[in-house]
Amino acid sequence: MEQILVYMTFPEEKTATRIGRALLEQRLVACVNILPRVESMYWWEDEIQHETEVAALAKTDSALFEPLKACVLGLHPYEVPCIVAVALDQGHTPFLQWIDEQTRDRSQK
Amino acid sequence: MEQILVYMTFPEEKTATRIGRALLEQRLVACVNILPRVESMYWWEDEIQHETEVAALAKTDSALFEPLKACVLGLHPYEVPCIVAVALDQGHTPFLQWIDEQTRDRSQK
Amino acid sequence: MEQILVYMTFPEEKTATRIGRALLEQRLVACVNILPRVESMYWWEDEIQHETEVAALAKTDSALFEPLKACVLGLHPYEVPCIVAVALDQGHTPFLQWIDEQTRDRSQK
Repeated sequence: MEQILVYMTFPEEKTATRIGRALLEQRLVACVNILPRVESMYWWEDEIQHETEVAALAKTDSALFEPLKACVLGLHPYEVPCIVAVALDQGHTPFLQWIDEQTRDRSQK
Repeated sequence: MEQILVYMTFPEEKTATRIGRALLEQRLVACVNILPRVESMYWWEDEIQHETEVAALAKTDSALFEPLKACVLGLHPYEVPCIVAVALDQGHTPFLQWIDEQTRDRSQK
Repeated sequence: MEQILVYMTFPEEKTATRIGRALLEQRLVACVNILPRVESMYWWEDEIQHETEVAALAKTDSALFEPLKACVLGLHPYEVPCIVAVALDQGHTPFLQWIDEQTRDRSQK
């Protein structure tokens, strides 16, 4: 099992909470930490945009990234949402086991 | 030397600050950035919980993860706290050296 | 192409925005998410300092880390700023391609 930290951004907290809850209900993540305000600057249609967004960090197993992504894409209002993941290099073992227990029904399908 | 970014969550800022200071005093980290409010959703006793928490990012050497974890576990109110780490892939060399200098007493024991 | 998440800290939001915009203008990053308040604790001149700072996460290609660092160092008020990067292990392919498109002029020089 290899756990990951998935980083995503959303237009506002309501959307982040709705999608976070859907991921939890489908056992695709063990937990989500929503950062309620980030200031985002990015290129879009050849102009630098500056918008207030919301970010989120979700903890899950790397085997669930594809179904997680499909679930987010089905609910996210953006055309190309940020859904990226970094590998957890070390971790408190009981917490890593808890991630696996909370996503077990999914990750072993 | 391989530096890491340790991600942890806490019930509120006071606990995050107290544990962050203990990690610094024991030279187990070079610095801690506390994110003063995150909205957390997670499975606990088969229900989705929604709580306001605090997150923190600490920079240290991977050799110090085990003693760092022991220190946090000795002070943290949660039964199974989130203590996970990602490897730093690249970095500003003087900053990485500064991490090592600030944790030298520990990492070479 | 290997994309990375670059983590940086700044004294306040104005500096973070100014440097973020410079990175975008020079096509060194595709986007920047600024976390408008973090509480930082760190060792400096043998004392634990406690300051309010601003953090930022920038998404780019690993080949651009060196020029990104040079740009930040040319504009940052700190002597030894935190500029570190983690590798993206998985990602939504259209988003990763978007990162490459937004930084293409630079990463292929």
